[in-house]
This record gives sequence, structure tokens and C-alpha cells, in this order.
Amino acid sequence: MAEIPTAAISRLVTYLRILEHLELQDVSRTSSNDLAERAGVSAFQVRKDLAYFGRFGTRGMGYTVPILKRELVRVLGLNRSWNVVIVGMGRLGQAIANYPGASDYQFQYVGLFDVSPGVVGQQVRGLTVGHMTDLPEFTQLNPVDMGFLAVPPERAQDAAQALVDAGVKGILNFAPTVIQPRAAERPGLQDISDEWRGVIVENVDFLAGMKRLAFYILNPHLKDAPAPEEPA
Amino acid sequence: MAEIPTAAISRLVTYLRILEHLELQDVSRTSSNDLAERAGVSAFQVRKDLAYFGRFGTRGMGYTVPILKRELVRVLGLNRSWNVVIVGMGRLGQAIANYPGASDYQFQYVGLFDVSPGVVGQQVRGLTVGHMTDLPEFTQLNPVDMGFLAVPPERAQDAAQALVDAGVKGILNFAPTVIQPRAAERPGLQDISDEWRGVIVENVDFLAGMKRLAFYILNPHLKDAPAPEEPA
Repeated sequence: MAEIPTAAISRLVTYLRILEHLELQDVSRTSSNDLAERAGVSAFQVRKDLAYFGRFGTRGMGYTVPILKRELVRVLGLNRSWNVVIVGMGRLGQAIANYPGASDYQFQYVGLFDVSPGVVGQQVRGLTVGHMTDLPEFTQLNPVDMGFLAVPPERAQDAAQALVDAGVKGILNFAPTVIQPRAAERPGLQDISDEWRGVIVENVDFLAGMKRLAFYILNPHLKDAPAPEEPA
Repeated sequence: MAEIPTAAISRLVTYLRILEHLELQDVSRTSSNDLAERAGVSAFQVRKDLAYFGRFGTRGMGYTVPILKRELVRVLGLNRSWNVVIVGMGRLGQAIANYPGASDYQFQYVGLFDVSPGVVGQQVRGLTVGHMTDLPEFTQLNPVDMGFLAVPPERAQDAAQALVDAGVKGILNFAPTVIQPRAAERPGLQDISDEWRGVIVENVDFLAGMKRLAFYILNPHLKDAPAPEEPA
């Protein structure tokens, strides 16, 4: 699996979302053409993305929705449980904690942290918001896989460092800034400091959809353009 | 511009975010290699994506950060103002309304709507949350470009319909479901009902990053894989 582009993983997540939707509508079968139209890519792209991970359909017969969904869940690692802490329990952290759907996939919020006196001590979804200074002790006592960052942008890098020091394996950054998993200012990969090695950082651009929407309102004829066919 | 894949627009948004970050760090020059490494794609892909919209750099000299940023802002239509209403002012709607960064790009929240008696009438960012039944009159009196949906999933389709009926040009759906801009249950493009024609829908998968993160924690060797070089 050495050559799978990150964009393919993003598309797998999109296909999974479409399959969830089809399943809710009691649609039992789909095809690469159907998935392609719904995802805004070419059918060739769908088949190529899925082929990285195996053969999921029957030639000419398409895919069985629950089976393909189950396989994508497995590929993405969503069939196991993930213990998550949220750092930053303002409105965004609260929205994340309460967003329906995370529990569908065994993402479990095990700890919530903040620094504001008005927030620390609050009850959210049955958990008491702790102070950031308690994070190291908390992670020593509780296994934590991921940290979600929902702090103001100017606090994001320091909060990410605290999560790395506490031993999380991955950070999902909702703050409107880019977390740099690196020591140097303009880094190459060799500059990654030791404690960041192996830590995965995903930056969520909360406003990306807003920007895409602006573009497509101004260029509506481009909206349904599928990706061009590419050679295998 | 008839053949620009939707994935290229998503990548432009990513490049813009990287440029914002570089500008904050007072980095004045970048290159397709640098943008590629930061975006997790190939340098060829960066050059190809930018070439859809013009020539922004000097061969061998790379790009001037503020100039390339300004050009991407223009391409994406972020140099004009966008009037936005938010439908659904629970925790997610409040998080969206208060998320820093939207105002950087002249996205202006002009109206906030909900149906809950506990929420309607609240003050958020200087606006009073109105009732959904007031939306048609509101949009007759105020120009509205976009509607952001932050309602529970089971209300999303109806709320989207209300936005379309009120004349918005685009919908950004944060609810954990897929909005179908179509009349029929398993639609082809010809089934789009008249009032939905020209309305752009972008579905935001709030949990997509969580799913990507799970995959990369389990497959960290794939994290920095750039997109394979593609033929022009």
C-alpha cells in the first residue's frame, strides 16, 4: 500500500458517507457510476480508489451497499474503538462533543480539557471538563489515541505540543491554523523532532466548504464536472 | 474552464490555507515543491491545478506568497462579500457563527434562524435568532447568497428546501446527512426540480477528518505519500 495518495483516502471517506446515506434510504445496491456521480468524480476514479484495497464488487453487478460499507469501515480502521480527548471546550469543542455520528464509529470522548476558569469543571456529556495541566496525569491513567484541538488559533501549536507530550498518536486540528509537526521553522522531513515522530496531524479547514461554495456559486457550470479519466 | 475537476477546487482551497499560514509566518516566497509537500500532493499536481487559472509564478523562481494568495482569493470569489444565513442555532450553529476566520473573507452572517423556543430570540454576534417561519420574509427584504445548515440530520432536507424556496444560491450543509438537490428518490440530473436548478449544495463531512486520522494512525507510512505523477 505504499503509493496510495492522500486524496484517495479522502475520497474513500466520501464514498463511505454516501454508502451510509444509501443504507439509511434502504438502497441495497450501487455501482461505480452511481458512487461517481454522487461523489463528483469519474467512475474510473472510484474503481481505482477501491482497487487499492481489494475487490469489493462483481463485474457488471456493482456493489452491495452494506458489504461495501463494512469493507470501507474496516479499511479505514473504524471497526475498532478510538479513545479521544478534546482540548478546547468553547463553542467549537462543545459542538464537536455533541455532534451526532462520532459514536456510530466507536469514537469515544474520554476526556475534555480547557484552560478557562468558566469552562473547567463544567459537565459535558457526562464528563467534567479538566484543566490542561491535568492532561499528562490523565493520559498516564487512561489510554488516549487521538486529541481533537478546538482552541483559538494562537494556542493551537502549544496545545498540540501538550497532546504530543502526553503521548497521543494523532491530532485532529479544528483551529483555523496549520499545526506544524516539526521543530524547525521551514522544515524538511528530517527536522521532525523526535517526540513528533509517528504522530499524525490532520488539519480540518472548517471554512473550506464555504470557500468551495463561493467558487461554485460563481462557476455553477463547473459543479458537476467529474474528474477527467486517467490512465491506469 | 469546462474540465476542472472538483478535487482541484478542493486543493486550491488547501493551497490558499497554506498561503495564509505562510503569510502569518512572514514567509514571502514559496514553490510548487513547498506547496506540494505541505498539501500532501505532487509538485506536478500543484502546477497543474494552478495552470487552470493562469500563470502565477516565474519559471524557476517560484511564487510570491501575497501575490499567489491574492490570485487564489480572486479565483475562488473570496474578494467579494457574501451574505449568509445560518439555519440551526444549536451548538454547531453557534460554533459556526463564532468561528474566527469567516470575516477574513467578507462572509457576513446577516440572519440566524431556528425553531426551538429556547433558541429563537437569543442574541448571537449582535443578531437576534429568528424563527424559520420568518425566513421567506427576511430574504425578501435582505439579499442572501448562502445558507449554512446546522440542523439535526432529520430536519436537513426540509430546511434545505426552505432555503431554496427563499432563493439562496448555495447551501453549505453541516448536518450529518447528504442533501439531495433532487426531486426523485434515485435521481438522474434530469430529475432536479425547477426551483433547485442553479442552487449549489456542498455537504461538509464534519467527521471526515476523524476518519482520515484513524486510517493514518493505523497506516502511518502512507501519510506523506504524494499523489503519483500524472501525465498532463
